[in-house]
Amino acid sequence: MFITIEGCEGAGKTSAIQIIQEFLKTQNISCLTTREPGGTTFGTTLRSLLLSKNTEYIPPYTELFLYLADRHHHVHTVIKPALQQGYIVVCDRFIDSTIAYQGYARGLPLDTIEQLNMIATEGLLPDYTFFLDVDPCIGLERARRRSLIDSVSQEESRFENEELVFHQTLSRAYKLMAENVSRFITIDANNPVDVVKQEIIYHLQNIL
Amino acid sequence: MFITIEGCEGAGKTSAIQIIQEFLKTQNISCLTTREPGGTTFGTTLRSLLLSKNTEYIPPYTELFLYLADRHHHVHTVIKPALQQGYIVVCDRFIDSTIAYQGYARGLPLDTIEQLNMIATEGLLPDYTFFLDVDPCIGLERARRRSLIDSVSQEESRFENEELVFHQTLSRAYKLMAENVSRFITIDANNPVDVVKQEIIYHLQNIL
Repeated sequence: MFITIEGCEGAGKTSAIQIIQEFLKTQNISCLTTREPGGTTFGTTLRSLLLSKNTEYIPPYTELFLYLADRHHHVHTVIKPALQQGYIVVCDRFIDSTIAYQGYARGLPLDTIEQLNMIATEGLLPDYTFFLDVDPCIGLERARRRSLIDSVSQEESRFENEELVFHQTLSRAYKLMAENVSRFITIDANNPVDVVKQEIIYHLQNIL
Repeated sequence: MFITIEGCEGAGKTSAIQIIQEFLKTQNISCLTTREPGGTTFGTTLRSLLLSKNTEYIPPYTELFLYLADRHHHVHTVIKPALQQGYIVVCDRFIDSTIAYQGYARGLPLDTIEQLNMIATEGLLPDYTFFLDVDPCIGLERARRRSLIDSVSQEESRFENEELVFHQTLSRAYKLMAENVSRFITIDANNPVDVVKQEIIYHLQNIL
């Protein structure tokens, strides 16, 4: 089973992954948690180019091709082998991030992105996608607080530094996908972490 | 005017670029010489990932997307602006390298590559392509001699280290393109550099 976690900056994806990992451990289920970009050693170089606040301007199609390179390497060398070995794979960001960020927010054609996502994933789709639905203002506030105390978050703030309207577009894009694609499970991520945890575990129990 | 230089390893592309650059200088024509991968500061990181002999295995589609990211950034930020300013741009490798290397030699579908090349170049095609046609055995021998005395060439030998059959496939691919695409000008690159120089200058005079 392949589960992805999606959402805007500061939605709480890292916490959600930990919650899922811990719950699966209590059920004695083998699980691999990973992330995009940078789910492979090779991909960490691409992650740095894509997320560093110090990266020079990247035109949208350049950005898209870099994400696709990272994704293809990740699917081919990590995700598919783990699924074949029977692991539940939980991935922080996947194809829907590209649709939201490079499609809706950067304005690239959605049909091109869907076609290229299919090539990059070799046809692999998530079974379930947890969408952490946070108000963009609350999410950005959380992300910026985190950057104040965490040097890695501060370094990887290229998208966080986009204008509020960019994040509002992302939020609308995710909501639209969640309404129209059946694998999406929407979690109200404005709630305190304990409530979010309960909701995630409730859905996980249903899935399993 | 946009001129590209294509050919197998050790065909003499670097020398050809110098010959063209020097000839255009004698004619008082402004010229920008550049290369792929790595024609931008940003792209040098991608060049290193793509060409280093120490890079871990890269699946073909990952390789393709990285070349496309590098190309789009290069076209968008270097080649198109220089052409708009009236420069003759001469580029060491371009779209035909991707057709030969990732298409014919790695086996990816040619129609997908052509479609993605068009996205990466924003529709820009070379006006003329000099194909340096070298016997793969002679080219490889030259490339390997160069690697013995030049540390950069030695480091960037990932493709040079492929089997002979890989290079023979490349050579056939280029010949096929040269026969079928009118912008190609084939130069017999098995000849000594003085003869190659005369031939290149003859064709340049015709073009100008």
